[in-house]
Amino acid sequence: MSFSSIFKFLTPKDKTFIPLFEENAKLMVEGAVLFNKLFLVTDLAEKSSLMIRIKEVEQKGDEVTHRIFEELNKSFITPFDREDIHELASSMDDVLDFINSSSQRIRYYKPKHLGEEFVELSELVLQASREIHKAISELRDLKHTFKIKDACVRINEIENNADDIFYHSISKMYENETDPIEIIKKKEILLSMEEATDKAEDVADVLKSIIVKNA
Amino acid sequence: MSFSSIFKFLTPKDKTFIPLFEENAKLMVEGAVLFNKLFLVTDLAEKSSLMIRIKEVEQKGDEVTHRIFEELNKSFITPFDREDIHELASSMDDVLDFINSSSQRIRYYKPKHLGEEFVELSELVLQASREIHKAISELRDLKHTFKIKDACVRINEIENNADDIFYHSISKMYENETDPIEIIKKKEILLSMEEATDKAEDVADVLKSIIVKNA
Amino acid sequence: MSFSSIFKFLTPKDKTFIPLFEENAKLMVEGAVLFNKLFLVTDLAEKSSLMIRIKEVEQKGDEVTHRIFEELNKSFITPFDREDIHELASSMDDVLDFINSSSQRIRYYKPKHLGEEFVELSELVLQASREIHKAISELRDLKHTFKIKDACVRINEIENNADDIFYHSISKMYENETDPIEIIKKKEILLSMEEATDKAEDVADVLKSIIVKNA
Repeated sequence: MSFSSIFKFLTPKDKTFIPLFEENAKLMVEGAVLFNKLFLVTDLAEKSSLMIRIKEVEQKGDEVTHRIFEELNKSFITPFDREDIHELASSMDDVLDFINSSSQRIRYYKPKHLGEEFVELSELVLQASREIHKAISELRDLKHTFKIKDACVRINEIENNADDIFYHSISKMYENETDPIEIIKKKEILLSMEEATDKAEDVADVLKSIIVKNA
Repeated sequence: MSFSSIFKFLTPKDKTFIPLFEENAKLMVEGAVLFNKLFLVTDLAEKSSLMIRIKEVEQKGDEVTHRIFEELNKSFITPFDREDIHELASSMDDVLDFINSSSQRIRYYKPKHLGEEFVELSELVLQASREIHKAISELRDLKHTFKIKDACVRINEIENNADDIFYHSISKMYENETDPIEIIKKKEILLSMEEATDKAEDVADVLKSIIVKNA
Repeated sequence: MSFSSIFKFLTPKDKTFIPLFEENAKLMVEGAVLFNKLFLVTDLAEKSSLMIRIKEVEQKGDEVTHRIFEELNKSFITPFDREDIHELASSMDDVLDFINSSSQRIRYYKPKHLGEEFVELSELVLQASREIHKAISELRDLKHTFKIKDACVRINEIENNADDIFYHSISKMYENETDPIEIIKKKEILLSMEEATDKAEDVADVLKSIIVKNA
């Protein structure tokens, strides 16, 4: 029996951290939905409004993350190890940051055309966000840890998949795209999208660590 | 009353960490002043000598950072939480690292022309360094924590400002610059300068955490 | 006498972490040897088989790293500070990750020609890996800490050396290479190789911290 398990009996039901994590997971999915939509609409005004909304969602996420850090500094008792709470908050914040930075790069770099691989990557980012949301909802009582484990397995698969799409897109682009400036723009956007799934994997790593310690 | 506050009464006045942090803050400002000057002088020999001096300042900063880590490993009692001291030293080191790496990129990439946006970004890096210096001077007695808070607020504003300038410069460059090699060079330099302000924000985050815990 | 030294007498000889670290150090050297070979063979099929083997080695390394994290979460007593074990495992994993990502970039980007600077950098990555391997073998009994210190000094020299080669190669490339797409490809590959040595320096930093605490 681990230290954390002993303390669990003494710890009052958390009413601070879990709701904040749930709020951030919801914002992450919201950002990922808007981001995915960006590749499905063609109207420029609509695209522009989506990018502004993604930035707003990211700023809301920042505020929630800061609240988690503040609570962490003030609280003596926490539902999980302090470093895991810190790491979970940071990595969830990173996912939304990279979603927003991908959107901002599209906004400011104005690439001529974004092919099918961008749609696919945005779908993977959305799937990863949904899996994180599912896992976070299970943190409250930790009764169905297998659901968290399953979500983590799927996040790992999604990240591997994103990695493959990333490398193949870059490879294809070097072969077919003749305008070096377009290559630079697209590479930066693809990179930022791929990094969003990398950060989702970091979230999965912390979640796995929380489960093991609270088993 | 937090754990740290209880210990504060028992802790002898720190004579190890605070002076080292002050030394590093001074080096950071020194590096940022030299870096800003780089965009104001036109003489090539003078530019070259500035770049060499920036590298020297960065190496001195490295030494101070290593001394902080060594003291941290040896000390049983520290003026703040160990992880905060570690994080503060690393993030301050990162600011100076990115100032130097921006300078080195200019040195080795030899871009043809660096416009007004580079001057502006270098001023923001300098402002952020001065704010960090001010905040660090308040760590010694923590009597005027509002001054640290104010510095953190300004560092956040500076970072937001740098982010805007970064994206607008990149966007403008993609529209006006026709030489892809110049784009690559300038993008890398802008990125490194923007990252210096990102790291300044990391410094502000640790400072905020130190204040909350020692309130 | 530090806390860790007191505990050392009480700690049973570690049979969990050290063997896993040794396994990972061996995999790192294996990956670095294969990677260095990549620049020495000319046969395309052989190159391709080397890249596949590097990826396999990296995946094995991932598994060992995950096992270390799992053990860390389960263990109450550890041979070194928990955060040092975590940091050592992560940074060793990063070295092998960057070796593989350099190899993958060569595989997918298909640059036309990789000059002498690539061979040199791959040799430095290999040297750094061997130094890490040597240092890790000394962790078991910590009787010859000077050997770990020496390895760390050499890793720092290797990293400085790699940094110089990196900047000079980039600088030379900007002067001589006229195809911007080739510049983009090579810059990304050089960057990833240079980052492998950066991560080796992170490994050295943790090793130094472990020595100081257990002195």
